Amino acid sequence: MSNRYAVVLAAGQGTRMKSSLYKVLHPVCGKPMVQHVVDQITKLHTNKIVTVVGHGADLVKEQLGSSSEYVLQEEQLGTAHAVSQAKQLLANEEGTTLVVCGDTPLMTAETMEKLLAEHQKAGAKVTILTAHAENPAGYGRIIRQADGTVARIVEHKDASEEERLVQEINTGTYCFDNQALFTALASVSNDNVQGEYYLPDVAEILKKQGEVVAAYQTASFDETLGVNDRVALSQAEQIMKQRINEQHMRNGVTLIDPQQTYISCDAVIGQDTILYPGTIITGASVIGENNIIGPNSEIKDSTIGNGNTIKQSVVNDSEIGNDVSVGPFAHIRPASSIEDDVKIGNFVEVKKSVMAKGSKASHLSYIGDAEIGKDVNLGCGSITVNYDGTNKFVTKVKDGAFIGCNSNLIAPVTIGENAYVAAGSTISKDVPGEALAIARSRQMVKEDYVSKLKGKK
Amino acid sequence: MSNRYAVVLAAGQGTRMKSSLYKVLHPVCGKPMVQHVVDQITKLHTNKIVTVVGHGADLVKEQLGSSSEYVLQEEQLGTAHAVSQAKQLLANEEGTTLVVCGDTPLMTAETMEKLLAEHQKAGAKVTILTAHAENPAGYGRIIRQADGTVARIVEHKDASEEERLVQEINTGTYCFDNQALFTALASVSNDNVQGEYYLPDVAEILKKQGEVVAAYQTASFDETLGVNDRVALSQAEQIMKQRINEQHMRNGVTLIDPQQTYISCDAVIGQDTILYPGTIITGASVIGENNIIGPNSEIKDSTIGNGNTIKQSVVNDSEIGNDVSVGPFAHIRPASSIEDDVKIGNFVEVKKSVMAKGSKASHLSYIGDAEIGKDVNLGCGSITVNYDGTNKFVTKVKDGAFIGCNSNLIAPVTIGENAYVAAGSTISKDVPGEALAIARSRQMVKEDYVSKLKGKK
Amino acid sequence: MSNRYAVVLAAGQGTRMKSSLYKVLHPVCGKPMVQHVVDQITKLHTNKIVTVVGHGADLVKEQLGSSSEYVLQEEQLGTAHAVSQAKQLLANEEGTTLVVCGDTPLMTAETMEKLLAEHQKAGAKVTILTAHAENPAGYGRIIRQADGTVARIVEHKDASEEERLVQEINTGTYCFDNQALFTALASVSNDNVQGEYYLPDVAEILKKQGEVVAAYQTASFDETLGVNDRVALSQAEQIMKQRINEQHMRNGVTLIDPQQTYISCDAVIGQDTILYPGTIITGASVIGENNIIGPNSEIKDSTIGNGNTIKQSVVNDSEIGNDVSVGPFAHIRPASSIEDDVKIGNFVEVKKSVMAKGSKASHLSYIGDAEIGKDVNLGCGSITVNYDGTNKFVTKVKDGAFIGCNSNLIAPVTIGENAYVAAGSTISKDVPGEALAIARSRQMVKEDYVSKLKGKK
Repeated sequence: MSNRYAVVLAAGQGTRMKSSLYKVLHPVCGKPMVQHVVDQITKLHTNKIVTVVGHGADLVKEQLGSSSEYVLQEEQLGTAHAVSQAKQLLANEEGTTLVVCGDTPLMTAETMEKLLAEHQKAGAKVTILTAHAENPAGYGRIIRQADGTVARIVEHKDASEEERLVQEINTGTYCFDNQALFTALASVSNDNVQGEYYLPDVAEILKKQGEVVAAYQTASFDETLGVNDRVALSQAEQIMKQRINEQHMRNGVTLIDPQQTYISCDAVIGQDTILYPGTIITGASVIGENNIIGPNSEIKDSTIGNGNTIKQSVVNDSEIGNDVSVGPFAHIRPASSIEDDVKIGNFVEVKKSVMAKGSKASHLSYIGDAEIGKDVNLGCGSITVNYDGTNKFVTKVKDGAFIGCNSNLIAPVTIGENAYVAAGSTISKDVPGEALAIARSRQMVKEDYVSKLKGKK
Repeated sequence: MSNRYAVVLAAGQGTRMKSSLYKVLHPVCGKPMVQHVVDQITKLHTNKIVTVVGHGADLVKEQLGSSSEYVLQEEQLGTAHAVSQAKQLLANEEGTTLVVCGDTPLMTAETMEKLLAEHQKAGAKVTILTAHAENPAGYGRIIRQADGTVARIVEHKDASEEERLVQEINTGTYCFDNQALFTALASVSNDNVQGEYYLPDVAEILKKQGEVVAAYQTASFDETLGVNDRVALSQAEQIMKQRINEQHMRNGVTLIDPQQTYISCDAVIGQDTILYPGTIITGASVIGENNIIGPNSEIKDSTIGNGNTIKQSVVNDSEIGNDVSVGPFAHIRPASSIEDDVKIGNFVEVKKSVMAKGSKASHLSYIGDAEIGKDVNLGCGSITVNYDGTNKFVTKVKDGAFIGCNSNLIAPVTIGENAYVAAGSTISKDVPGEALAIARSRQMVKEDYVSKLKGKK
Repeated sequence: MSNRYAVVLAAGQGTRMKSSLYKVLHPVCGKPMVQHVVDQITKLHTNKIVTVVGHGADLVKEQLGSSSEYVLQEEQLGTAHAVSQAKQLLANEEGTTLVVCGDTPLMTAETMEKLLAEHQKAGAKVTILTAHAENPAGYGRIIRQADGTVARIVEHKDASEEERLVQEINTGTYCFDNQALFTALASVSNDNVQGEYYLPDVAEILKKQGEVVAAYQTASFDETLGVNDRVALSQAEQIMKQRINEQHMRNGVTLIDPQQTYISCDAVIGQDTILYPGTIITGASVIGENNIIGPNSEIKDSTIGNGNTIKQSVVNDSEIGNDVSVGPFAHIRPASSIEDDVKIGNFVEVKKSVMAKGSKASHLSYIGDAEIGKDVNLGCGSITVNYDGTNKFVTKVKDGAFIGCNSNLIAPVTIGENAYVAAGSTISKDVPGEALAIARSRQMVKEDYVSKLKGKK
């Protein structure tokens, strides 16, 4: 394989996004567009990726980190001008250079590979990625010669009636012989209405020099979608969602409604897991087999074992073992570890806590900064009082303890093994194992209180 | 501009809706169909809008109020008969009269304007709004003459084979020279199978009198959708949803999934706000910039500032400032005011209360009829006891107070500035500023209680 | 009507499902695919249904029960081999035998009836159910003769260029003269690449014998969808969802978004009920008129009266009367009965309890194993303490009682009529009617506690 280079165009402003967030940083399925592009390019094993940054340069660099090198395009004077900025980093290299826009998040490495393959096969100095457009209005048209190579690219506004009937369009992705590219770039002029330097002119220059200009037409028009506003952004999200979801279905995951299931690019899901509508799985979540997730559950950056049920709940940056039941309406906050056979019921919040095997918090509880042992029963309404207004403290509940309803465990405090806290108690001191702790008042009854009260009125 | 009048046909029964609610009152995106129609007509600056009411007349009048005048069609004897009812209010006027059905909620003022413009340009006595139908079966077909004017309208059942191939259909919306209309209406007969007086016959009569009958074909077939059953109602909802959502996206709002985002016609949303799937925004809600709303949040008639996060929550008829965090699973009920930097966490309900800047109710709380000051911490499970079975009372918590977990504040009661209420306390008397209030029992421990109990068994 | 028999092919493995669940048991809209098929066949009043089972035989039998007889296909040697297994049960019968695949869950009895009618009308020995495929690639093509009967079925791989243009495809559903079927089956060979016995060969054999082979082309290609992987499974779910939803809309139910509304095949819903997006109705739920359900409510196997509002809540295996308000964020668990005019507010769980007419649990409560009388007010945070770690007990609250906030009712316990439990009380002994019960500590105030504390720091 010859040397490969890539230039990612990521300097444009994106005014039609109407956003203070720089265009290529808008996420699609949770990942910024330009990151999608670079992730795909990375699969091509290029020698070097150069990202041309401009507006929002620092944020783009921060996003992509060391996966790319950067050149700054201070003024946006057209696509050819943008690629020229990479001259110092690339002009001396021999090989093939792929040029991709940072706002085409759907483009796959497979398509890029096919473009590169066609380039090599055609012995071309430039090969254009094209697509068949149902409605080509507005796009540059590809005018092919009898031998299949490209005669020229005609912009829509310059196209004749006949040329406008052509449905093969320029997607804006190219590969070039690297040295031919940089040599030709020097000859591109900005002698046009916009006063910009256009990359397609490189093809024209090379053509005039007698070089072969080739084109590879991808079967997937969708992949070439460039995102210029939020309508297109939502279309990209939709297409990528379908792509991700179809892959999970083919792998043996049931999606009751793929239209209503939102899975990040990086999530892993095991066979026979069922996702109900409204489920959102974000980040690098890893979900095992035979789980029932949703409806309306949100799982973020979490690791979920097998055989769990997570209904109408939110799980964030936590671990869940096997055969756990969560929800409906539960909230597991970061740094929690929910072990096997645990039940987290309705209106229960867990934060930065361990719930060991077989324990239950079935209703209306808050478990924060706690270490809950095995087979503990946290009664309805029981609360770990972990905050005194200044600091946070840890609650420990040992194996087999029973915490009564509506009780408060004021941290720092430890409830011993098999201990029993009576309902309605506020516990501020450690409870030994096997002990009963109670902190409540005796019940008093005032007979006929209500009828007397009414009598008075 | 000549005088403009409008007649809205809103008297039909709508039996296919199978509803006790009168047809034109069925809402689309939260607004009754006939209100959509009148709202669009209002943009045309008409001299007079006359709504023909019949079934459900009182409710239609109540809905539209003074934006329209009304005439009653006691029996439903056809569209021409319906328009005739407006005779007394309109017959003496000079100008142009638009006739629109009350069950076409998608029709825009823009299209009506174009119809009126064509009417004027054509020097016609009647101009028919037409559309191109992919499948014209069932519709009246527009038969044009060589000069582009209309020869006649042919009902589907009366059409020849050749005429049935015509895809330009009558949408049922017209504009008329007002005087020609009422003169011609007098000649319409009910000599047909149904025994009804049909409005298209006016066109025929005028044509026979040598007048010009024109047609304006809208590019948007969708707009002309007439709703006769709930399947069509759901289609209208879908189309209007797309229309609303696309406008917000073009304005700089990110909709992760426009198919799952439901925004009322009247809502205002600022740039860089992100709406996650399952979000429902109803009424005249005003939402600022840089908010994250959803998934699955419902915002009704509320004003939301900037930089807020509202997840899996319901906000109803309230105000939220800036940089507030709500949810997941929170419920803000009417007449609440949530000021800047407040946190309303999971399983928290706020009702008719103020939460001043920087205060927190992070878990499992009910704040009702309360005035919560700044930087107050309402502990987990703390409750304002605002109801004694007969009356509701106000709770006041002053700036900087700390309310312990699972405590009850029995209203009317005031907790002073920086005061501290111990966890598990039921507070029925005012607490001075800087004081500690405690109302709970001493913790008692019965050692080996559990093991003894087991021994007994 | 002649005798009718049916053979359901349900023995295949379904490896592309990538599932430990046997293919035909995967549910569509909550009902296993093979059950859909048998339910439709049952409407045809067949004399006998024979299901050919193989992989997962026991589970399929358990699913279908006595609605079918069974034969075991021990090895899967092709569709003809599968049907042959029914020989002992069917070969001696006279009549018509329908053969349907167990993985075509969308096929309706209406279509089967039409197939049977065509079979009879054509005087055929076999009639093939066909459909028009937009993209017929991969399907067997139906080659018709001039008289409309079938010349032959050509597999895609064996088809000529011209034959591949044919868009009428074999759906894999057939009806046969029963005796002709079993006679011909004996002649089917497995002399082909896969070494399998194919059912279409029966048509070829009968054709050679001079019998009429007919075909009935259904207008609904969708109905014939065979589910081989989870992508197809999700398509079947989508199509059946639309079918179910459209029927409810035509019956007078408003679905704000039919794409986001999930109703089981067996649910019944009354007129003027409105279902908001994200609503899931499963099992044999029966829902009355004028209800507002959703958004995001899940109703399972429950009976709901009229005029209720159920928002963002889960109702499971329970009964709800009329004019009840549930949610948002409420959970009604199995065996609960919620009578008229009850309010179940946010963060309230009801389990195996009765709430009689007019009672309220408005916030943050758990009502488990309880009998709540009429007009009871259960204050915010009130809890039935129904579990002592070993057993569950019943709580009774009589008519008109008022239970204060954050109080615990430790079962078994009875609160008498009109009794009043003070907020923050833990009640472990019965409270007589009209009495006030209180069990809490006196409030103590330590003045300047906070300022002194700060002073020390």
